[in-house]
Amino acid sequence: MNQRQLPLLPEPTLRRLPWYLAYVKTLLGRGTEYVSSTAISKALNVDASQIAKDLSFLNLKGKTRIGYEVKALEEALSDFLGFKATHKACVFGVGNLGKALILDKGLADYGLQIVGGVDTDPALAGSIVEGVEIVAPDELQAIMDRHNPSVAILTVPAEAAQEVADSAISAGFSAIWNFSPYRVKVPRNIALANTSIYAHLALIYNRLDRF
Amino acid sequence: MNQRQLPLLPEPTLRRLPWYLAYVKTLLGRGTEYVSSTAISKALNVDASQIAKDLSFLNLKGKTRIGYEVKALEEALSDFLGFKATHKACVFGVGNLGKALILDKGLADYGLQIVGGVDTDPALAGSIVEGVEIVAPDELQAIMDRHNPSVAILTVPAEAAQEVADSAISAGFSAIWNFSPYRVKVPRNIALANTSIYAHLALIYNRLDRF
Repeated sequence: MNQRQLPLLPEPTLRRLPWYLAYVKTLLGRGTEYVSSTAISKALNVDASQIAKDLSFLNLKGKTRIGYEVKALEEALSDFLGFKATHKACVFGVGNLGKALILDKGLADYGLQIVGGVDTDPALAGSIVEGVEIVAPDELQAIMDRHNPSVAILTVPAEAAQEVADSAISAGFSAIWNFSPYRVKVPRNIALANTSIYAHLALIYNRLDRF
Repeated sequence: MNQRQLPLLPEPTLRRLPWYLAYVKTLLGRGTEYVSSTAISKALNVDASQIAKDLSFLNLKGKTRIGYEVKALEEALSDFLGFKATHKACVFGVGNLGKALILDKGLADYGLQIVGGVDTDPALAGSIVEGVEIVAPDELQAIMDRHNPSVAILTVPAEAAQEVADSAISAGFSAIWNFSPYRVKVPRNIALANTSIYAHLALIYNRLDRF
C-alpha cells in the first residue's frame, strides 16, 4: 500500500467518526455551509465534548461561534477514515449477501473495490457478476496475481468461516471482513472487522416491547 | 407480542452470546456432545470467566469436568436470544441490500420474517420479490393491517434514514434496524440497532498494513 500511515485510533472513535461523516454528507446535500459540534451533538445524540475530542484527531480547526466548514469537514473525515483511497477486496461466498455487496455501488464511496469472488459452487465458478470474475477456491491465486486484493470479505456459512479466513490469510490477504456469525480468529498482524448482522437482532429482540 | 419477557441484558453480553451460539452450532454439525467454557474460550479468544458469566444468564448448568451439553446449550442460547420466536419485519428501501435480506433464508433461523417491502421507486411498488409484496410509502398501512410487523429494516440512503425511521415509528413499528450509515435517533421506547456496514471499513483501513 502506498497510502500514508494514519494514526492508530481507538475503536469507539472509529465507530463514531463515520456517523459524523454521514451527517455532514447530509448537510452538504442540503447546502449547509458551517456546522458546530453542538449541532452535530444534537442531531446524533452524542456528547458535544466527545465530538470535539474525536474531531481533534483530524488536522482541522473549527472557527469560534461558526464551527466547521461542512465541505472541508466532509473531505477531512472521508480522507482520514481511508474512504478516499482504493482498497481492493475479494468476496468469499457469492450467495445473496455476497452478490449484493458486488452490486452495491455505495462501497466505492467508502474506498472499497471488489475485484473478484470465490465460490465452491461449480455453477458459479467461471461466471461474471457485474463485471467481477467468480472463481473456484483453487483458482484464487489467479485473482491474487492479477489484482493483489488486500481485504477478504467473508460471506460464507458460519461453519466454513474460520477455514476460509485461514486460507485467505495464507493466500496473502491482510484484512478479514467477516459477515458470518462465527467469530473468526486471526493473527495479530491481520486487520479484522466482525460484521455479523444476525447478532444485532439479539439486541433488537432483547429491547423490543419492553417499555 | 406473546413472547415472555427476557431479562434486560447489557449490550456487550448481547454481542457475545451470538458468537457462542454460532460456535456451538458448528460443534453440533460436527457431532460434538459436550463443550466446556474453556474450550469455547480457546476457540473464540474470549476470557473463560467472561463466558461463564455470560452463560449464567441462561437457566442452564454445566457439569463439572464435562461442561455443557452442546444440544441443550444451542437450544437455550437460541431461545434466550429470541431467535426461536417469529418477529415480523418490513424492509424500507428495496435496493441491492434490501433485496438480499428478502432473499436471505438465514434470517428465518434468527427469528426474523420479512412480510413486506416499501420503496419510492414506482417500478418496484406493486411488485413481488420472493413472495414478499413491495408497496409505495403511502400504502404501508395495508401491510401493517395485514401483517402487523414490528421491525422496520432501513436499507434506504443515509439522507433519507431519519425521515423513514420517523414515519415507520408513526406507523406503529417498535424496532428500527438501521443499515444506513446515518445514526438515526428514536424515542426511548423504540428498540434500535445501528448496523452500518460501511462504518466497519474504517476499522479495517485504520488497522491495515500497520504491522
